[in-house]
Amino acid sequence: MQHPEKIHEAMRYSLLAGGKRIRPVLCIASCELVGGDESLVMPMACALEMTHTMSLIHDDLPALDNDDLRRGKPTNHKVFGEPTAILAGDALLALAFEHVAAKTVGVSTDRVVRAITELGSALGAEGLLKGQVTDLDSEGKDVSLSELEYIHVHKTAKLLEASVVCGVIIGGGNVIEIERVRNYARCIGLLFQVVDDILDVTKSSTVLGKTAGKDLVSDKATYPKLMGIENAKKFAEELFSQATKELAYFEVSKAAPLYHLAKYIVSRQN
Amino acid sequence: MQHPEKIHEAMRYSLLAGGKRIRPVLCIASCELVGGDESLVMPMACALEMTHTMSLIHDDLPALDNDDLRRGKPTNHKVFGEPTAILAGDALLALAFEHVAAKTVGVSTDRVVRAITELGSALGAEGLLKGQVTDLDSEGKDVSLSELEYIHVHKTAKLLEASVVCGVIIGGGNVIEIERVRNYARCIGLLFQVVDDILDVTKSSTVLGKTAGKDLVSDKATYPKLMGIENAKKFAEELFSQATKELAYFEVSKAAPLYHLAKYIVSRQN
Repeated sequence: MQHPEKIHEAMRYSLLAGGKRIRPVLCIASCELVGGDESLVMPMACALEMTHTMSLIHDDLPALDNDDLRRGKPTNHKVFGEPTAILAGDALLALAFEHVAAKTVGVSTDRVVRAITELGSALGAEGLLKGQVTDLDSEGKDVSLSELEYIHVHKTAKLLEASVVCGVIIGGGNVIEIERVRNYARCIGLLFQVVDDILDVTKSSTVLGKTAGKDLVSDKATYPKLMGIENAKKFAEELFSQATKELAYFEVSKAAPLYHLAKYIVSRQN
Repeated sequence: MQHPEKIHEAMRYSLLAGGKRIRPVLCIASCELVGGDESLVMPMACALEMTHTMSLIHDDLPALDNDDLRRGKPTNHKVFGEPTAILAGDALLALAFEHVAAKTVGVSTDRVVRAITELGSALGAEGLLKGQVTDLDSEGKDVSLSELEYIHVHKTAKLLEASVVCGVIIGGGNVIEIERVRNYARCIGLLFQVVDDILDVTKSSTVLGKTAGKDLVSDKATYPKLMGIENAKKFAEELFSQATKELAYFEVSKAAPLYHLAKYIVSRQN
């Protein structure tokens, strides 16, 4: 019996499958927004990508969304089998926290502990995972707009919020700065999901790198379904405008990456 | 649609299903061993039980061990369904880290960060989860004694080790004290598994509170299978004796709980 490198392989497979790295980029940009060097926040940026990847691996499982394609490649369980996919997700989650705690250098441990609290809370039963459970429960049911937002805030926006908040905490930011980026993240988190929903009904699987039209087939609540595609597009523009208002508090040059990231999210095609 | 309390219910169900609380007890006893008050270490003790419970929920899933009974009750996925069981496990894991970071009071954040590193490393791809993957891979194969130990060290002993090490770190212990309790934990970790294997072949499901004889049926490597029941019992006695030697470094009265815990593990009947 060879001691298996299989779990490492499975972890790397999804982590390095060519995601957009939006959470790490948000985190680094937020650290620099308040004058911190990107080296301070690199372990946290990696941890955010690990936790996000974990949520995708578990979300794709047969028992959950049962997806075969992710980022243009077969999903983790399709390649490594369900047991390994479950455990590789768990391992990525544990590694994320270990990585931040063990590898963050040059930052007061007070700030490291605060950032770990933020990350844990964004993921847990009041964060991303609550969103996933609510989302599952909503399939096949009538879902109102406010309920849809509740799902998306938890499923997507919480971790985006943690990305910028952790960046600012580790970068040395103060309470007001944290609140500003938190509001910015809430807007782009919702924006991200609205755009995702729009793309799901308007693009092919090849362009998306995942199975298109799935939300429609599986009877999931989406923004285009509830408000129509044109209104969903208008809503996206409003969220973008709100997000940029929050950035006005900071130096224009330092806020530029976050501005352009919001611009990228509202304009993305896959 | 009601915003689901289902994930909380599922988390509580397994967390409060009447486990033996060996990890929290080890953690508290280790904190007190080096003079720390139990209040300092309570969040970490809870976190250890949460991570242990997570590993049981995921281990019991149909894709893994496919177990119907745990601690005398239906397993989590039997009650709440597979999707919720997967997500409840994830949420417990995230909550564990959040809880330690957010709720530990009166301890330097340096020590909190070190303890989080230890916990993450005990769980991750070099810890418990690696053990679970190796264990799965070993089913139906010929497994040597050293390979069996490798599995058990990772699957069980790593988290027990983290329990005592985190207790000593948070309790204010020094490097030598950490090494002593680490060795102690390695012994009782292996001891725990050897006794578990012995009980699996000698006791009924009713006494164990889980499906008995499962390891034999599923062709899993166990100590009784590889060395015979009598030799497995002798091995357990040796491990107990080694564990108590490590405790001789400490005050007898303060080491008493850890001594009796080892005694309990070697004598337990379920």
